[in-house]
Amino acid sequence: MPMLADPSQRYKPFRPTPYPARTWPNKENTTAPIWLSTDLRDGNQSLANPMSNAQKMRFFRHLCQIGFKEIEVSYPAASELDFAFCRELLDEKEIPDDVWIQVLTPAREDLIRRTFEAVAGMKHVIIHMYNATSCLFREVVFNNNREETIQLAVSHTKLVRELAEQYAKSHGTTFRYEYSPETFSQTETEYAVEVCEAVKKTWFAGKGSVWADGRNEERIIFNLPATVEIFTPNILADQIEHFISLLTEREKCIISLHTHNDRGCAVAAAELGRLAGADRIEGTILGNGERTGNVDLVTLGMNLYSQGYAPNLDFSDMFSIIDTVTECTGLPVHPRHPYAGELVFTAFSGSHQDAIKKGFEAQQKREAQGDVRWDVPYLPIDPADVGCTYEAVIRVNSQSGKGGIAYIIKQVLSLDMPRRMQISFYRVIQELSEKTGKEITSKDITTAFRQTYHLGGSIYDGRIVLKSFITRDVQPSGDATPERSPSRNSHRIANLALSIDRLDRVDSPDRNNGADLHQTPKRLTAKVLIDGSLREISGEGNGPLSSLLDALQGDLGINLSIREYTEHGVGAGSDVKAATYVELIPSDADPKNKTKGGFWGVGVDADITASGLKAVMSAANGYAAAVDLDFD
Amino acid sequence: MPMLADPSQRYKPFRPTPYPARTWPNKENTTAPIWLSTDLRDGNQSLANPMSNAQKMRFFRHLCQIGFKEIEVSYPAASELDFAFCRELLDEKEIPDDVWIQVLTPAREDLIRRTFEAVAGMKHVIIHMYNATSCLFREVVFNNNREETIQLAVSHTKLVRELAEQYAKSHGTTFRYEYSPETFSQTETEYAVEVCEAVKKTWFAGKGSVWADGRNEERIIFNLPATVEIFTPNILADQIEHFISLLTEREKCIISLHTHNDRGCAVAAAELGRLAGADRIEGTILGNGERTGNVDLVTLGMNLYSQGYAPNLDFSDMFSIIDTVTECTGLPVHPRHPYAGELVFTAFSGSHQDAIKKGFEAQQKREAQGDVRWDVPYLPIDPADVGCTYEAVIRVNSQSGKGGIAYIIKQVLSLDMPRRMQISFYRVIQELSEKTGKEITSKDITTAFRQTYHLGGSIYDGRIVLKSFITRDVQPSGDATPERSPSRNSHRIANLALSIDRLDRVDSPDRNNGADLHQTPKRLTAKVLIDGSLREISGEGNGPLSSLLDALQGDLGINLSIREYTEHGVGAGSDVKAATYVELIPSDADPKNKTKGGFWGVGVDADITASGLKAVMSAANGYAAAVDLDFD
Repeated sequence: MPMLADPSQRYKPFRPTPYPARTWPNKENTTAPIWLSTDLRDGNQSLANPMSNAQKMRFFRHLCQIGFKEIEVSYPAASELDFAFCRELLDEKEIPDDVWIQVLTPAREDLIRRTFEAVAGMKHVIIHMYNATSCLFREVVFNNNREETIQLAVSHTKLVRELAEQYAKSHGTTFRYEYSPETFSQTETEYAVEVCEAVKKTWFAGKGSVWADGRNEERIIFNLPATVEIFTPNILADQIEHFISLLTEREKCIISLHTHNDRGCAVAAAELGRLAGADRIEGTILGNGERTGNVDLVTLGMNLYSQGYAPNLDFSDMFSIIDTVTECTGLPVHPRHPYAGELVFTAFSGSHQDAIKKGFEAQQKREAQGDVRWDVPYLPIDPADVGCTYEAVIRVNSQSGKGGIAYIIKQVLSLDMPRRMQISFYRVIQELSEKTGKEITSKDITTAFRQTYHLGGSIYDGRIVLKSFITRDVQPSGDATPERSPSRNSHRIANLALSIDRLDRVDSPDRNNGADLHQTPKRLTAKVLIDGSLREISGEGNGPLSSLLDALQGDLGINLSIREYTEHGVGAGSDVKAATYVELIPSDADPKNKTKGGFWGVGVDADITASGLKAVMSAANGYAAAVDLDFD
Repeated sequence: MPMLADPSQRYKPFRPTPYPARTWPNKENTTAPIWLSTDLRDGNQSLANPMSNAQKMRFFRHLCQIGFKEIEVSYPAASELDFAFCRELLDEKEIPDDVWIQVLTPAREDLIRRTFEAVAGMKHVIIHMYNATSCLFREVVFNNNREETIQLAVSHTKLVRELAEQYAKSHGTTFRYEYSPETFSQTETEYAVEVCEAVKKTWFAGKGSVWADGRNEERIIFNLPATVEIFTPNILADQIEHFISLLTEREKCIISLHTHNDRGCAVAAAELGRLAGADRIEGTILGNGERTGNVDLVTLGMNLYSQGYAPNLDFSDMFSIIDTVTECTGLPVHPRHPYAGELVFTAFSGSHQDAIKKGFEAQQKREAQGDVRWDVPYLPIDPADVGCTYEAVIRVNSQSGKGGIAYIIKQVLSLDMPRRMQISFYRVIQELSEKTGKEITSKDITTAFRQTYHLGGSIYDGRIVLKSFITRDVQPSGDATPERSPSRNSHRIANLALSIDRLDRVDSPDRNNGADLHQTPKRLTAKVLIDGSLREISGEGNGPLSSLLDALQGDLGINLSIREYTEHGVGAGSDVKAATYVELIPSDADPKNKTKGGFWGVGVDADITASGLKAVMSAANGYAAAVDLDFD
């Protein structure tokens, strides 16, 4: 039947006894839980194509590398492959000394015996036994009453204890025992406690030791599975806290959670369950598992980390983790999967990009002052912590703004455009983006930048190309005489394809502020290529830039003035270069009417004069292209 | 840098003022919130390749079909495409009369004016304005202090009000106003209230009407975004309840949530936020949106539904919803996505399958008695509600048990194997599964069943094939005389390739219980193909089955006895057939030693006698294959 207009007749929710005495909402998770990976058991059993034992081995090694100390490796009595995998782990000496191997068994004698055979000879083993305690399972699946269900748990706990004592002695194994009342969340809380108390009593009644060194195991693990997620996570937290409040000998118990994601809240359920007092969490890497999956341990671990608490698991190399998981399980990682998805640190929208750009700048300043506290808008952690490059952070589509584009130009070309130039260049990219309807890559953006501003080699040249120039001081009389400084003053413009232009360094650059004010008047003579033909042009002004503008006007009929000029250094030490940005407007335009856009240009050179001249030439080319100037 | 061993220096969590007076944990969500889909805005802006307007239109129509009454369609001032989409919606008369169109704008005069131009002429419009109120944004991004931030919100609210009054009159539009203090969750709660109070005062100070009919809008929407998820969902719930507790004129406000999934808890945050008093939820279908995505409205809606509360959204046709979303966004739906993923109602593991099979049987019984209450292990809802077939529920791999396999045979072939036959056939499948290491499909299982039991047409025939038979009563003297009933008693066996065998119906079948007890002694003569050659065999017994066994022994040297026999009807009315299952053991074996497996056979026929004979023949073939019988 399709969805019902009134679903109340069909769906009546199960609710455990309310626990209004809860204290968990006032708490915080500040330490890592004991982690148990069940990738090779719960994760594996839910795959259309379960892992081969070679894949399981690869996965197992990766789990050890991440830092897991408890790993559920199989349900050995269920299949020959699972059994064989246990033996391979042992025979090939794959188990680190400090790692506990966990194996699952139902409460059935032959299967329990088979389970012990599978782990015989291992150093540290957790035997994980379950039986169904929920009302639905008791009635529908097993047809057991409450007392029979307890007896089933007790008698098989007794068998596990006997076998553990026996194998501890015969095989030098140290055992722990984990008991799961299945499905805890759908079991009456008081009854779940009753079952667990009976199991605990039975387990600790054992007289022999289950430790290889003859000591006695001090704690039993009670795993409280939310095998199917059936209510909001706060209800599970209430149920866990209620359970713990009723349990005796709490100090002898490790309370373990095992949440699933049917309502999309497995992570929240585990986090709230920990607030409620749980010590341990069972889950999988990236959340594989039955149906909607087990809780994702990457998300849980990184959530702790993002609050400043060490998860004791290392997800630094997220890409190799993703490789292992996807190749072994055959399942994809969604692009929006927390911390691991391809898009989760990416901003496309303009306002987000702008905020991130500013955040990164503030962050860099703080870090330069020794304050590494992370505080960047839209990024709960530094993506670099999990191996994500900054280039992945900002990507551009038709919804992006100038901030993101400017950020990419800054990251890739080290050029920090002035704000109004950003707006101007943004229009170029937005037009490109709306035309193609596709994502614009970093490369698209930098290519468009080079094409627009004629930067980066001869393939990006405009119609006018500065090839060399000479500057001389001009006598107050107006006569130009050659400068007598020992410096070379004739410059060759380098054409380095696909790299940022540079000129040979001049020894005594006129380090003015670019506005050419308060300078000895100059005469500039330059060789330029105009539509491929070499010409010499020359002009005078208060400095090189105004001289060039004068030359452009007098010799080429291009009548432009500077409206905005800024510069900054690029690089450091002896490799430092100057980047200069100018906005030119037609000389007859009103320089205060900034709504009408001018023509932006950029120049980069080791010599600041050359950098400024190139910026002017870059902008002049923009003008020439826009007005379709005729030089003939 | 990779992950830090001590992340506490880098990550210091933001915490709002604690609110220990919380009451939300004692509440339940029992009604649907007001839903707002932002698929076309927040969802779209986060795509590498944003939707074309044609894709947006398709998506918009689907949202209306699902039942959304509020849809955020764009950020019209941000791009020409977004603006154009608003006009298309209007020009092409795509907006249902009862649907509100929401558009987003920042607090900037030119952009607000542009936004009104985009929606001019629509019937119901929500203008959604935001400005940044969080500490991080105030300091790092906008360099505004608290008072400036409030003034920004107030002055632009005033402008929105003026324009809304003006357009209500000039264009007959009814407006609502939504204000978002961005990022609410990272804003000091008390300060967020201060901003909202100022906005509220400004909005309600408007003297003109923002309703087309001249009434006054009675409620303002305060949307409280958790733009980035930065703490556990219970903290957000505390913050929401705290906010509401401080807000004046609660009755004039609609409290809206807008959660994101950075910590994997967007669903929980929305659910707990509703417990805390929120009225409305903004999100997307299947959780697309910036970075880790917006909250998924499918999960939220189905979560309500699974508790028996109507979500007022219809996800019955989940497959077409998935089609629309994946084709418009270019993003996949993860196989484990709650309610929508390919695997989320699927059980592979044996114990799960077994429980589900029993649960389905109990469910069917209850429903036959008029009780439709859903209660099946591992399935929080009936998968059929969202268009998922039962065949998708149980799938088989090497971790599966007999229950799942039996379930598939029952679903596909309508054959309900006896328990011990399930175990026997399970071994066949497990061997197949471990050999291939791949998922076993329903088709693989039914094919193996037909091959093992020689059922379904000549291509599955064994070495011995029953072609026809005649039975007659045998006189007490031992002479066999032809039966004189008017019925036809000569039967032709139909060979219907790829369908279940059937025989012509006999008019007076000997409806015994198969054990051939208390019957008039019979003589059976049958035509059989033995390795392709037609032979006649004949034997006597208490009924047809024992007569056939006698014939097999006497004429073919196959000495077998029946250990177990069961039958059931298949279908209903005049199409009813009998399905018979027999286990044969060598006559010299101990029938009580059930650990040594016998040979199972199955027969299906409209005639119960024929069905039984075919079951015996099916089992005899298994024996013949196992012992490599030599008929020559």
